[in-house]
Amino acid sequence: MTQISAYAAQKIKDRMQPFPIERRAVGKTDVRIDVEYCGVCHTDLHFVNNDWGMTEYPVVPGHEIVGRVTETGEEVEKFKVGDLAAVGVMVDSCGECAHCRNDLQQYCKQGFTATYNSPTDDPGGFTYGGYSKSIVTGEPFVLRVPETLETSATAPLLCAGITTYSPLRHWEVSEGMKVGIAGLGGLGHMGVKFAHAMGAHTVMITTSESKAEDARKLGADDVLLSTDEDAMAKEAGEFDFILNTIPVNHRVDPYLELLKLDGTMCVVGAIEPLDQVNAAQLLFGRRRMAGSIIGGIKETQRMLDFCAEKNIVSEIELIRMDQINEAFDRLAGSQVKYRFVIDMSSLD
Amino acid sequence: MTQISAYAAQKIKDRMQPFPIERRAVGKTDVRIDVEYCGVCHTDLHFVNNDWGMTEYPVVPGHEIVGRVTETGEEVEKFKVGDLAAVGVMVDSCGECAHCRNDLQQYCKQGFTATYNSPTDDPGGFTYGGYSKSIVTGEPFVLRVPETLETSATAPLLCAGITTYSPLRHWEVSEGMKVGIAGLGGLGHMGVKFAHAMGAHTVMITTSESKAEDARKLGADDVLLSTDEDAMAKEAGEFDFILNTIPVNHRVDPYLELLKLDGTMCVVGAIEPLDQVNAAQLLFGRRRMAGSIIGGIKETQRMLDFCAEKNIVSEIELIRMDQINEAFDRLAGSQVKYRFVIDMSSLD
Repeated sequence: MTQISAYAAQKIKDRMQPFPIERRAVGKTDVRIDVEYCGVCHTDLHFVNNDWGMTEYPVVPGHEIVGRVTETGEEVEKFKVGDLAAVGVMVDSCGECAHCRNDLQQYCKQGFTATYNSPTDDPGGFTYGGYSKSIVTGEPFVLRVPETLETSATAPLLCAGITTYSPLRHWEVSEGMKVGIAGLGGLGHMGVKFAHAMGAHTVMITTSESKAEDARKLGADDVLLSTDEDAMAKEAGEFDFILNTIPVNHRVDPYLELLKLDGTMCVVGAIEPLDQVNAAQLLFGRRRMAGSIIGGIKETQRMLDFCAEKNIVSEIELIRMDQINEAFDRLAGSQVKYRFVIDMSSLD
Repeated sequence: MTQISAYAAQKIKDRMQPFPIERRAVGKTDVRIDVEYCGVCHTDLHFVNNDWGMTEYPVVPGHEIVGRVTETGEEVEKFKVGDLAAVGVMVDSCGECAHCRNDLQQYCKQGFTATYNSPTDDPGGFTYGGYSKSIVTGEPFVLRVPETLETSATAPLLCAGITTYSPLRHWEVSEGMKVGIAGLGGLGHMGVKFAHAMGAHTVMITTSESKAEDARKLGADDVLLSTDEDAMAKEAGEFDFILNTIPVNHRVDPYLELLKLDGTMCVVGAIEPLDQVNAAQLLFGRRRMAGSIIGGIKETQRMLDFCAEKNIVSEIELIRMDQINEAFDRLAGSQVKYRFVIDMSSLD
């Protein structure tokens, strides 16, 4: 189990105290949102721990942000005070490259501006995330949140939701397809809900018998135990698409073996070197292994609207801000069903 | 450098002597071809050495076979005595599965019958390949060879040719695309010729400065040295498609990094576990890594016709049958430009 370093723990404690951040004024095209809820993503823990060696302390994590608009710049058109709004993983991008022009800001050639721990174009500017009372963001990166959904449970849609929705849409998951979701965590449980809602025969692929019943409740039509070699052999060549949400290095060969001719496994969990990718699994079956990160802003809005239509939210455990260290510990130990969300009214 | 085992060497020597194979009679739908030329594929060496633990000695390798039809069964319709014909990697498949019905016999769900070292439906039947005076094969797996091409140099088209042609077609390589060919050997040199003939801006990606000039002669518009980190960094995100013909385990990350958004690298060389597949290279750019083997029979015929239209053959070094051990040694040491072909008139 990953332990938060003493240094990081101290930084989180520091974070609980006011520290001297220059707050961004609401510019002409900006929206201020008073944060009501913020999801706790595994990425937050990586940044708190500086696992990727790129954290600039003090860091304020949080990129699954939902709240009410409390102020709008004079040129803001689509939001007014009182609207339920959200901010996800990105707050800006170059807007000019081919990818940005195609609503794929997540692949901006200049690199998008992340919601926290990211320099901005303002002199000395730097982003701080949603573990906060409020956030000021440019209108183009603000999403509209359906009022019909349980607000606290919509927060994780902004990262865990779009990260799974986007590849399922990109690879055109639909009725008549057999789709596997590997790994049942924050991402995986959203994958199951979305694949099921898109009409696919949805199979939870998990190492753990104990997760089978939960997976079925979430919408899985079937459960395949990756530890059961006979069951895995029987399902070889049967899957049109597999969404691999496993967040750590693992052998991908057994999953590739499940794919049909021309089938794709898309990795969204692990951002690291993967052991044992056997080219034979790709060659014999013309299979593909791909990757995907979050989704563009327009697609994120479509995902939120789809959630409203299908009544989809995340399964969450609501915590107070002062429970964050305990939550990080449990997150590192995969002991959460399936996403912590911080009630920001607890931050006073 | 791989050495041929003493056992395998002895077996090859044995092979040079007559050994008691029951020769297949020409059935109603069979074609007998007197072999004129047979290419030497790296797979032949793997089988001779029993590298994959599946060789049944005595083995007669050879699946790049070109010759004249000398006998046809009474129901054979498309071939007559004297026709120039070819046999590639496959001689049969189930014919009934979804893949066979879609002319993708190479992915037959029952497994295709290989041209050598493969059991057949005949009682006690077993296949022996093209290092031989003649071969008898069912008409559906016999190809027509254009008379306009240099016959000896067409032999490698049956494996090295179709293995590279098929993925280039499947991923719709065409004018306006930037295509990389990684590795310049038997497969790679055909990849360069085909990608160029399909109109793509074709870039040879090689570790070796010495191959640059050769690659340009073969049709490469550009050469990228994979050992030049600055050049590789400059080309990051620039390639629509990469055909990876490198025949051994290698780090694929630097090649994935070259792909554009949604770009694919197709592996056709290495059939083994690959080190260092970094999921980050796939995620940031929604890139894909795929695999492909040979091609279906209809597609192989299309490839031969395309070669006639574009005047494409393999670059070969013609050898006598009694030079095969030396050829295997040089093949193992990558000392061939670019394919050995055996002149079968030397086998008497």
